[in-house]
Amino acid sequence: MIYLDNAATSYPKPESVYQRIDHILRHTGGNPGRSGHRMALDASRVIFEARESAARLFNIKNASRIVFTKNATEAINIAFKGILRQEEHVVTTSIEHNAVVKPLKRLEARGVQVTQLKVDKNGWVEPKDIEKAIRKETKLISVVHASNVFGAILPVAEIGRICRKKNVLFMVDAAQTAGAMPIDIEALNVDIFAATGHKSLFGPQGTGLLYVREGIEPLPFIDGGTGEDDELVEIPDRLESGTINTPGIGGLGAGIEFLLKEGVKKIRRYEEGLIRQILDGLSGIKGIEIIGPQDEKKRTHLVSFNMQGKDPSDIGYRLDNEFGIMLRCGLHCAPCAHRSAGTYPSGAVRVSPGYFNTADDIEEFLRGVREISCGF
Amino acid sequence: MIYLDNAATSYPKPESVYQRIDHILRHTGGNPGRSGHRMALDASRVIFEARESAARLFNIKNASRIVFTKNATEAINIAFKGILRQEEHVVTTSIEHNAVVKPLKRLEARGVQVTQLKVDKNGWVEPKDIEKAIRKETKLISVVHASNVFGAILPVAEIGRICRKKNVLFMVDAAQTAGAMPIDIEALNVDIFAATGHKSLFGPQGTGLLYVREGIEPLPFIDGGTGEDDELVEIPDRLESGTINTPGIGGLGAGIEFLLKEGVKKIRRYEEGLIRQILDGLSGIKGIEIIGPQDEKKRTHLVSFNMQGKDPSDIGYRLDNEFGIMLRCGLHCAPCAHRSAGTYPSGAVRVSPGYFNTADDIEEFLRGVREISCGF
Repeated sequence: MIYLDNAATSYPKPESVYQRIDHILRHTGGNPGRSGHRMALDASRVIFEARESAARLFNIKNASRIVFTKNATEAINIAFKGILRQEEHVVTTSIEHNAVVKPLKRLEARGVQVTQLKVDKNGWVEPKDIEKAIRKETKLISVVHASNVFGAILPVAEIGRICRKKNVLFMVDAAQTAGAMPIDIEALNVDIFAATGHKSLFGPQGTGLLYVREGIEPLPFIDGGTGEDDELVEIPDRLESGTINTPGIGGLGAGIEFLLKEGVKKIRRYEEGLIRQILDGLSGIKGIEIIGPQDEKKRTHLVSFNMQGKDPSDIGYRLDNEFGIMLRCGLHCAPCAHRSAGTYPSGAVRVSPGYFNTADDIEEFLRGVREISCGF
Repeated sequence: MIYLDNAATSYPKPESVYQRIDHILRHTGGNPGRSGHRMALDASRVIFEARESAARLFNIKNASRIVFTKNATEAINIAFKGILRQEEHVVTTSIEHNAVVKPLKRLEARGVQVTQLKVDKNGWVEPKDIEKAIRKETKLISVVHASNVFGAILPVAEIGRICRKKNVLFMVDAAQTAGAMPIDIEALNVDIFAATGHKSLFGPQGTGLLYVREGIEPLPFIDGGTGEDDELVEIPDRLESGTINTPGIGGLGAGIEFLLKEGVKKIRRYEEGLIRQILDGLSGIKGIEIIGPQDEKKRTHLVSFNMQGKDPSDIGYRLDNEFGIMLRCGLHCAPCAHRSAGTYPSGAVRVSPGYFNTADDIEEFLRGVREISCGF
């Protein structure tokens, strides 16, 4: 069994993640931020430390501006719905995930204006096109850091500089990059940052995070929690109503500690090697069409492709059943991106290696694709 | 160390919950409902089975009407914000948790009408007062099943009958009762049901659930997920956008299986005994004022109290530090309920035993309270 579906969720996790979660469940079972007894305080410390680790990983100056969520989708909903008002304008791209597309569609119906910039055939957006799209009502530029279909890493540094210059908020959806490549929130001028916990950050499913720079105060999304007057409750509490997922966030903290210890640069270099191997291998197979850039340095850790005359889900089914290769086929919750790639509605096959995969795993995957392409 | 804070979060969990979560993390790491490979399908099965178990526990006919959430607060937000429209009227009580009070306050600002019925000194609401409060714009009656401050179990059967008769939706916040006492959604005529996973259902923190009867279709709350057109995505998927908390929900499933195996009636009987012991013991201590009913049969598994002339948080601090007793003091995220009890703003001490506590634990707690009351 070879798992190559890390862009959907990473597997396995580092051993320390499993152990941390089990330890919290068995020994730190209090409700953090609620009761004042020792086990509740221990639980609060779990959350505090995870926040500090995340701040260190992304170079976030004030860890208390990090809000833990259940996934990136919730994080993005909190940001858009808490910040964008009627008549305000947001610029985004045509390769966003449904987690961005759908809340914006709902807000459009409420009078928010949305510009969706087209990408080129590699899923690339020109920073100058973003600059041109800015107008006086523009409140926010929101781009995916790397598309979950094309894999292309967008020029966030340049876009961040444009946003600073034009005094527009800059939001990045880092679901496919957080933990997979170095990200420096300060250097990139990112104001709002959404990530999922269960992909390259090595946390368990059920975790995500949202960073909002000081001075940006989204309205509460889920109302509840402590206190009487919401306006007096500060971030992160204001955006974390209800009992928080202590074991999950503790596990996410352990995942981030693993990243800090291994070094994201080293992980990135290793995964680039696997992606190079995939690109080279696939390019040598007749009838394969790769979506997105051919250069592994321009990609996050995923490659989507199609095989002429074959349905992507058939390929996935055969890879799983005949070769024990697990990956994801179809639209990847990003029908817009597949429209941009010209692969709607059947989608594509997506292979996404992780830090625990080996060159042998990739070789086995390529062997499977080769055999399927020959029809045996 | 004696844990008596089960109304904040239950501790410990059954061994099977720890084991299930660890097993899912280590062996069922796929993304449920996303990819089609075997480990993703295994993960889908985890979610499916938890839904079936929850349906069995609450006598819910169609398990697919159960939506998994991150906590009860999210569940309640989904229901209110997805169902209530401008000019519509909702009837609730003056002892609700912030998870109910705050979203209703926000909706009031958007034109929803809210009637908050006063409770008597035991935290009791007369069904006939609820009936009287219903008017032609009334869409929903929403009551807490048992207050997290008073502990009093509200007459949900009678209220349910009134709602059926008057053709008004009936919603129950069962955060303090789900798993702690038998609940039959059909028999009680409940249309919308919110529960937290990490209290008496023995799931981990980060889990909750919402049931919505067929025919009730809340608008999506968190937009995203699969598909292009939200209207075509059905419940539960429509209300579960983003990657779901598979290990957490699997753990919740294990907790519910434990309840089904032990029998909630047996658990309820056992906890009633502990509550009787607490009520008897506290009644014999000079200067103790108990909030809510004196009859253990009219209470869920918690007792809030004050000691004349003492600050509740001082009592909690001393119980923790001198006697190793963990419980929760203050306002319990329910300032309205404490106003109703006349204990705002200092709140109360709340002791909440669980199925894994013993009579000796309660005796030790009572010894602590006695010693503190004597000032040594």
